[in-house]
Amino acid sequence: MTSPQINAGRLLASLHALGQIGALPGGGVNRLALSDADREGRDWTVARMRELSMRVDIDAIGNIVGTFPGTEDLPPVMVGSHIDTVRTGGLYDGNYGVLSGLEVVTALREAGVQPRRPLAVAVFTNEEGARFQPDMMGSLVYVGGLPLPDALATCDADGVSVQAELQRIGYQGTAPVGAPLVDSYVELHIEQGPVLEQLGLQIGVVEGVQGISWTEFTVEGQSNHAGTTPMALRHDAALVAAQVAVFMRALSARLGGRQLATVGAVRLSPNLVNVIAQKAVFTVDLRNTDSAALAQAESDLHAYAQQAAQAEGVRITSRTLARFEPVAFDPMVVNLVEQQTQALGCTYQRMPSGAGHDAQMLARVCPSAMVFVPSVGGLSHNVREHTAPADLQRGAQVLLQVVLALANRPSQLLPLNFYAPLP
Amino acid sequence: MTSPQINAGRLLASLHALGQIGALPGGGVNRLALSDADREGRDWTVARMRELSMRVDIDAIGNIVGTFPGTEDLPPVMVGSHIDTVRTGGLYDGNYGVLSGLEVVTALREAGVQPRRPLAVAVFTNEEGARFQPDMMGSLVYVGGLPLPDALATCDADGVSVQAELQRIGYQGTAPVGAPLVDSYVELHIEQGPVLEQLGLQIGVVEGVQGISWTEFTVEGQSNHAGTTPMALRHDAALVAAQVAVFMRALSARLGGRQLATVGAVRLSPNLVNVIAQKAVFTVDLRNTDSAALAQAESDLHAYAQQAAQAEGVRITSRTLARFEPVAFDPMVVNLVEQQTQALGCTYQRMPSGAGHDAQMLARVCPSAMVFVPSVGGLSHNVREHTAPADLQRGAQVLLQVVLALANRPSQLLPLNFYAPLP
Repeated sequence: MTSPQINAGRLLASLHALGQIGALPGGGVNRLALSDADREGRDWTVARMRELSMRVDIDAIGNIVGTFPGTEDLPPVMVGSHIDTVRTGGLYDGNYGVLSGLEVVTALREAGVQPRRPLAVAVFTNEEGARFQPDMMGSLVYVGGLPLPDALATCDADGVSVQAELQRIGYQGTAPVGAPLVDSYVELHIEQGPVLEQLGLQIGVVEGVQGISWTEFTVEGQSNHAGTTPMALRHDAALVAAQVAVFMRALSARLGGRQLATVGAVRLSPNLVNVIAQKAVFTVDLRNTDSAALAQAESDLHAYAQQAAQAEGVRITSRTLARFEPVAFDPMVVNLVEQQTQALGCTYQRMPSGAGHDAQMLARVCPSAMVFVPSVGGLSHNVREHTAPADLQRGAQVLLQVVLALANRPSQLLPLNFYAPLP
Repeated sequence: MTSPQINAGRLLASLHALGQIGALPGGGVNRLALSDADREGRDWTVARMRELSMRVDIDAIGNIVGTFPGTEDLPPVMVGSHIDTVRTGGLYDGNYGVLSGLEVVTALREAGVQPRRPLAVAVFTNEEGARFQPDMMGSLVYVGGLPLPDALATCDADGVSVQAELQRIGYQGTAPVGAPLVDSYVELHIEQGPVLEQLGLQIGVVEGVQGISWTEFTVEGQSNHAGTTPMALRHDAALVAAQVAVFMRALSARLGGRQLATVGAVRLSPNLVNVIAQKAVFTVDLRNTDSAALAQAESDLHAYAQQAAQAEGVRITSRTLARFEPVAFDPMVVNLVEQQTQALGCTYQRMPSGAGHDAQMLARVCPSAMVFVPSVGGLSHNVREHTAPADLQRGAQVLLQVVLALANRPSQLLPLNFYAPLP
């Protein structure tokens, strides 16, 4: 028995092989959930699992779980992610987590290592939400956060349901949803942001997923001639939208920490050069890892929006488009990721995830954490998404070490003091 | 011979009769330049002129001039405006100036009054510019500001030319463009703004047309994930657009006077809630009656835009969409309007025109001025455009008095001291 090692060439080859399926002419991948390309990607992945003698289970929402047996019949340590992509996606988002899981199994087999607990590699259905909403659908259903019938009844923009597409592509399985219970979950993913690259670090030890608050504001003012309406008599909907956007940048600076604020979408009516806008509809995307700070940002946003609207004599209303509380990963699993990262001599930092991931769903039912590797230029959901091969290798090796430690640990549950925090 | 008087009922009836042509189901008028409805409106107006025994001349750009003879063969005093409308226009914009001119002729005939100089009523082609650009096309060609062939070659969005449409509707005439010379020009128009109504005044004595500066800015930043890009690493095109909009409101307050500033159009790309905008295209509409102040506002705008772009690390470029220097009307004609308004006991103020009008073109070739009446709610280019009948009557009576004074004055040219300014 040798020490199991990630084979970077083999991992890269598998990423490129899966990336051929749904490949776009100019690079990148279009493998929308439950499309023909997704079916082909699933077929390819299931074939890899069978080649590794894994048991393959498919549940009613199309989640695929491949299991490599342990020496004992215990709940499995699960790794995984998703293989669906946005319309113009890259090779790594999701796929890297799934294929690294298979590479871990391959490396264990190669080294003749069978851990105490089974090792499960999960492919969750429709993580991206690019075709069917909500995103993270498969993992949400898996943990009981969304009733299966509701998920199956969800339709895409053409009115085609998840149920119909699952049946069409042959991936509505019979395995019970969310069973058996999982011992613990670790997801390896590209960062999808610029932080690790900017800081020159190799690994992100992900402590949690930040909370998200999306609000859409509608400002209703009075349309008028830009040349004949004195400034003092205006009720300019566009101005209030602009004021809120400027305020949010200042607010994020004032709140500091990890407060993010983005006004990414604005629609004016009538949107003409010489007409004062009657209406402005705009969105505010707030994120914070701290629940109280996120609530404070929301409160400050609404107070300012009301005040700005009143000063301009316009009406403002808002509706919540999305709201997720921050998720904190299990401190013991996070500590384990940090220990193994250190043991491998990788540079790293503890950090939150800015984007949502299947791991935040699994965190509801078992101790979970994530490992990040750098994204070149911070690009993601983009055909130019890229991570250097050495970074891909390092991330997968960390995953392997963490999974082995979890699978081989003596107790069935993670004791609170099993992995001491680092100094 | 009695003193000529405007007949409000007759004037109103003519406004409603013309308003039937191109009438919209829910109220208002759609009589785009050189459309079938425009032809029908022209036919109706020419028929009215002939009923008044006026000579009708139509030039090569389709301007219609009806002339009521004077006792002497002198250059005519001209009144007029346009009868084309925007797609969702009202009954008064333009039409009121033309039909008041015909009502003046009717009242003179009724009273048996023939002034010394001829009285011309002009209908200028395509003032609105809603179908063919530039706006004020007919009057611009009339005064030699745009070569006739250029105007005729102009095409609408469907590629149909002014020339083709003039021929199709039978309004490409043979009268020489811009001949004979005009003695003086007075245009009666609804204010298209809220100022007179807000101040409770009956007449606006229009001293000139404010200058206009339209600029389109393009900001190019970097598209990135709203959840994973730290605030300090952002290059947010939308933020810079918002900052400029907020700055322009502050700048107009700081410059004071008659400085107007409007950001009416904004387009973001990709315009998604969770993506930092890569691109923002927005417009700034600046207006001022003072040429130097307008130039200062432009200069401050560009300086701020550059500074904001630099601070955010984005590229900003701009192009001028339109630029008109302020027009000052002839002080003697303006004084005459003021005197006659006072003589009729009307409340009034001297004011600039916020919108462009044919009068600003005629001002290039003869002493000119305008008379405004209130617009209810300041609404214009709107099916709800409205002016009270009493206001319509008062405005037309002022026009009649001014025209009579101009037409009967002894000297051919307006002597500089003929009409002394009021205290």
